[in-house]
Amino acid sequence: MLATDDWSRAEIEQVLETTEAMLEILSRPIRRAPPLRGRTVILFFAEASTRTRVSFELAAKALSADVVNISASGSSVEKGESLLDTVRTLEALGGDIVVMRHAASGAPYFVAQRCGAAVINAGDGWHAHPTQGLLDAFTLRRAIGDLAGKRVVIVGDVVHSRVARSDIHAFVPLGATVTLSGPPTLQPAAWLHGALPAGVTYEPDLDRALDGADAVITLRLQTERQEGGLIPSLREYARVWGLSEARVQRMKDGAPVMHPGPMNEGVEIEAAVAHGARSLIETQVTNGVAVRMALLYLLSAGDAASGTAPGPEVTAMAAT
Amino acid sequence: MLATDDWSRAEIEQVLETTEAMLEILSRPIRRAPPLRGRTVILFFAEASTRTRVSFELAAKALSADVVNISASGSSVEKGESLLDTVRTLEALGGDIVVMRHAASGAPYFVAQRCGAAVINAGDGWHAHPTQGLLDAFTLRRAIGDLAGKRVVIVGDVVHSRVARSDIHAFVPLGATVTLSGPPTLQPAAWLHGALPAGVTYEPDLDRALDGADAVITLRLQTERQEGGLIPSLREYARVWGLSEARVQRMKDGAPVMHPGPMNEGVEIEAAVAHGARSLIETQVTNGVAVRMALLYLLSAGDAASGTAPGPEVTAMAAT
Amino acid sequence: MLATDDWSRAEIEQVLETTEAMLEILSRPIRRAPPLRGRTVILFFAEASTRTRVSFELAAKALSADVVNISASGSSVEKGESLLDTVRTLEALGGDIVVMRHAASGAPYFVAQRCGAAVINAGDGWHAHPTQGLLDAFTLRRAIGDLAGKRVVIVGDVVHSRVARSDIHAFVPLGATVTLSGPPTLQPAAWLHGALPAGVTYEPDLDRALDGADAVITLRLQTERQEGGLIPSLREYARVWGLSEARVQRMKDGAPVMHPGPMNEGVEIEAAVAHGARSLIETQVTNGVAVRMALLYLLSAGDAASGTAPGPEVTAMAAT
Repeated sequence: MLATDDWSRAEIEQVLETTEAMLEILSRPIRRAPPLRGRTVILFFAEASTRTRVSFELAAKALSADVVNISASGSSVEKGESLLDTVRTLEALGGDIVVMRHAASGAPYFVAQRCGAAVINAGDGWHAHPTQGLLDAFTLRRAIGDLAGKRVVIVGDVVHSRVARSDIHAFVPLGATVTLSGPPTLQPAAWLHGALPAGVTYEPDLDRALDGADAVITLRLQTERQEGGLIPSLREYARVWGLSEARVQRMKDGAPVMHPGPMNEGVEIEAAVAHGARSLIETQVTNGVAVRMALLYLLSAGDAASGTAPGPEVTAMAAT
Repeated sequence: MLATDDWSRAEIEQVLETTEAMLEILSRPIRRAPPLRGRTVILFFAEASTRTRVSFELAAKALSADVVNISASGSSVEKGESLLDTVRTLEALGGDIVVMRHAASGAPYFVAQRCGAAVINAGDGWHAHPTQGLLDAFTLRRAIGDLAGKRVVIVGDVVHSRVARSDIHAFVPLGATVTLSGPPTLQPAAWLHGALPAGVTYEPDLDRALDGADAVITLRLQTERQEGGLIPSLREYARVWGLSEARVQRMKDGAPVMHPGPMNEGVEIEAAVAHGARSLIETQVTNGVAVRMALLYLLSAGDAASGTAPGPEVTAMAAT
Repeated sequence: MLATDDWSRAEIEQVLETTEAMLEILSRPIRRAPPLRGRTVILFFAEASTRTRVSFELAAKALSADVVNISASGSSVEKGESLLDTVRTLEALGGDIVVMRHAASGAPYFVAQRCGAAVINAGDGWHAHPTQGLLDAFTLRRAIGDLAGKRVVIVGDVVHSRVARSDIHAFVPLGATVTLSGPPTLQPAAWLHGALPAGVTYEPDLDRALDGADAVITLRLQTERQEGGLIPSLREYARVWGLSEARVQRMKDGAPVMHPGPMNEGVEIEAAVAHGARSLIETQVTNGVAVRMALLYLLSAGDAASGTAPGPEVTAMAAT
């Protein structure tokens, strides 16, 4: 299991501050800066993804990197080559940074330990999706200010959610508390029995969780969960756990609503909320590009400065 | 149903004249101009395509844009995200222009109405393939001059052909008439019963249709039609509706032969005609890149000039 | 069958010398040179590949070319378009160089004869993989010096190996001899019966083949061969034909070990050998990018100099 709880507040803030500079580049008429010119970023997505893959691709191109896409189908992974050999080959080919999404929890960590290329985890199994955590922290802080003392609700299928884990690991070091809500069948068993991470509580009544909250993040419901018997029906889920107009009013005035996408409108979120005044959902997408630019830049700058590998803090942040 | 019959002659001619300038860029030793530098063109092809997708990709790159490819497989469309949400996400990611091919007629139009990004239809169902219509008009005009008073034969599976519809909507405003031919089972039923669009006639005898014509476009036969019982056999189709050397002699001297590709040689067209002196088939492919450059340029220039969206005419032209 | 045995020593050496210059470009902080700026390289891979496809992509980008990827799935090849028409279309679209991998032996040769674009064979069936042969020659010569009088062992499934054929056609003109080894069921029947190419011998005892050799290349075992009854079991294969630490000691001091990848560690090669001091396997990958840059550069330079097609020697070398 990968320890992402060792990110310090300073490390997270370095990324968030660099992200501000990147957002400024994206606001220019010609959205392009030169720092990764002549460098190669390899996007190795062994699981389907549109928004994360395209977000990294645009981030790398905005920094003038060359980008190469590899998917699992059509790659030598199909020929039975080990994941590690594939990444070592990508490094020998000249890949400076490998961005990797994989269905197996811990896969990017395993690879990063054993090869010289910088590895960024773009989501591994149920484990972590650190760039999502950072972009959510960035988006929240821009919307509601310093997170110290703020309370963020995360609602839904927490047990299968790498987003929830990475959000917690980004918000708590910045001083926020997190209230989880959602069906008990979709929470980590140990957490239900009291072994919750620091700064995190579980409130089984969503209305009560939302009362006076500073923000809410609702998670995508994998509709397959219904077949597994973990939820009674989509309609019932929407009634009990869906974010409706009435429910979001329970939060503080103007407290924002976020979702990692893609949404099931009418299930975990009503269309009116998804596209309403409180919604930061498209802002999350836009900020995601800037956060990924910041990480690519920091990894690459570390590399250039030392002549070897980036500083251990940045690598750890990116790889975990 | 999407109204493409509202393109004016002036709008079409603006595109064709811009295409001439783009063709000049493509004839340079270094085929590249800077107008889309730092802009992002997203190619979202939910249906398989080589020539159209690559044509747009090369067009965008020749104008120095960044290009991101998305196919339906491996995209969040597989996760059940709505088409509209996908395109809104692409826009939030920073996509300036979304080029979209989709199996559902009207899909690009639906999307263009509801999001801020410029959308170019690269073919939707049986409905329209406007860049094909424009490149065919451009190619014809270069070969036989002003289309006013000219008669163009379109032969084959008209009912399932977005190419035929878009050709009609490009040729007729420029003053040409169109004679359709092909099996009655493969023509729009209403058209057979007399409700033909302005400037269009149907002639069930292909030889008679070709007599004295100024040009002919033969459509790809989806060989699956045979299984549906709409044609007796491929051999019979080739005999009755195929373009042979003898048949194309019926047209005016040197009157050209066109095909949108990919061809079934020996079915709708003989190899000797496809690769003969009258054939403009490879010229169509080359001109297609220039037409797409013109559209990307006009959309983007409109955007830059107004600071917001391109002029309604160009958007309409591109989106429909 | 394609005649690759007509490469002269001078032609091969031209590529190897140009590769040295390309390797120097790859060692720069910004790995990029301008010679293919504004030119388009199309990667048309009808068979799955990671390392070769990415190697060509990075090679083309390092020379500032635009790169377009096409795979068989999602391409018009699926619509039944002939291979030749597809490549002619790619040429009409503006592709300057088409890099092509295909399951049918001879396919790239067939295409290169009939269209104007420069075609580079990136592997066709069991026939040839010429850039692999050249990169292996380059890697060997850097490691052990001039190949004249050297003896290289190639072990494994020679009959199904385009790598083995292309290695022979690169090494023998440079003065090396090749000793084949591996199961008799996996050697070309004619070769077993004495009709071996010039400079090549077959030695059924691997230990004897390795005694005093200057280098060894072990081939990937397609593990499907087991089901076809051509080998008894993977364990038995590893015991009799696998490269172990003990076996590689039979060669000259420090004689290197190579493998075209992807490896089956524990089958044709022990992990300790694959990652040991004699292994040049990652160096092969890195050198592959430089060799492909050299070929792209020579093809393109020929094209620019003559105003038409590159010299026949270079085309032949690249296409075969």
